[in-house]
Amino acid sequence: MMGLFKRRSKKLEYEPMGVKEGLTEMKDLSEQIIDLSYAAILFDSKDIGRQVGELEEELDRLLHIVRIGVLLAARTREEAEQLAGILQVANAAERIGNASEDLVEILDSDIEFRPFAPFFLKEAEEKIWALRVVSDSDLCRRNVGDLGIEAETGARIIAIRRGTKWIYEIEGDRLIKAGDVLIVRGVEDGLKELKAYARGEIGWGKYER
Amino acid sequence: MMGLFKRRSKKLEYEPMGVKEGLTEMKDLSEQIIDLSYAAILFDSKDIGRQVGELEEELDRLLHIVRIGVLLAARTREEAEQLAGILQVANAAERIGNASEDLVEILDSDIEFRPFAPFFLKEAEEKIWALRVVSDSDLCRRNVGDLGIEAETGARIIAIRRGTKWIYEIEGDRLIKAGDVLIVRGVEDGLKELKAYARGEIGWGKYER
Repeated sequence: MMGLFKRRSKKLEYEPMGVKEGLTEMKDLSEQIIDLSYAAILFDSKDIGRQVGELEEELDRLLHIVRIGVLLAARTREEAEQLAGILQVANAAERIGNASEDLVEILDSDIEFRPFAPFFLKEAEEKIWALRVVSDSDLCRRNVGDLGIEAETGARIIAIRRGTKWIYEIEGDRLIKAGDVLIVRGVEDGLKELKAYARGEIGWGKYER
Repeated sequence: MMGLFKRRSKKLEYEPMGVKEGLTEMKDLSEQIIDLSYAAILFDSKDIGRQVGELEEELDRLLHIVRIGVLLAARTREEAEQLAGILQVANAAERIGNASEDLVEILDSDIEFRPFAPFFLKEAEEKIWALRVVSDSDLCRRNVGDLGIEAETGARIIAIRRGTKWIYEIEGDRLIKAGDVLIVRGVEDGLKELKAYARGEIGWGKYER
């Protein structure tokens, strides 16, 4: 697969402590933070906006870890050149976080109402919907990993509102419960399908009743 | 659905010319450009990097259109407040584009080899794969919209390499051809599924042979 592209084969012979994990997490966070910032605007939600702020701080923290890691790792000029590249990627991911924070800053403004958000987000290619899970939905009491929601519907859960609480860490072992409101991002066909599952209108493949 | 959240009901009574379309396109582009910039790094591809540069210019152009639109639309203080919000969103989307361009700048650097990209992108939650479509795959001679690839597998086509040509506009009517290399972003389970379809190992639902 990778062979389709001209590639340099030489491997990185050292692996700076924490840099790999830090950079991977920065990449994931830089995507999650964009989804969340658009969701915050769409739902006019300061709660989601606050989470964007927290993720942005987390990106800052990770950038620092990555910086320290690469600074300690550079021994030769060649290594330093490569590590400079890592710094560039990490910086860019952090700047994506800053831009996302700019997006949600609008929620703190004095603007009386912000009716313009739905008017552009509703026509975007990838949409953000809020779906309530009813008690007889096949999604209930199952975890996100087992369900494989994204592979089945193309919809990605970016947050869950449970009562007054918000959940932003959506790992594979995250259990879905009756009454949850799933904030999901995806294409319309997939979102419609997931909505039918959440409403208990259709059964979920392998758990079909 | 929206009723779950406290919302202000008053509607925007005017619709600045081109602003809605411009902002929607900026939102879509701000997501596409991030996918492409990570893909460019992963595949060490200056071709994809150039497209990131072009999308960034397109974002600049759209930002200008949105600015002109809102400047012409503001008549009262209240309207101006709302329109300032639109400017903020548009600016943030454009900054996401700038950050993405920073990401791919690395491809122009003197670094001899950049082996660090796979080491962090391969473990990311949403991965980017390149899949070659064989001639007896059910994907061949069908268009992206009819197939509903994203809703079926969660994988999104972000670019297609056809021979020496790159295709970046992946609309619903985009035909997939034998020999195409699909650059796709998604979770691993969905990517594996799509890979099996692309290789002709399994038939595509409604077109099943």
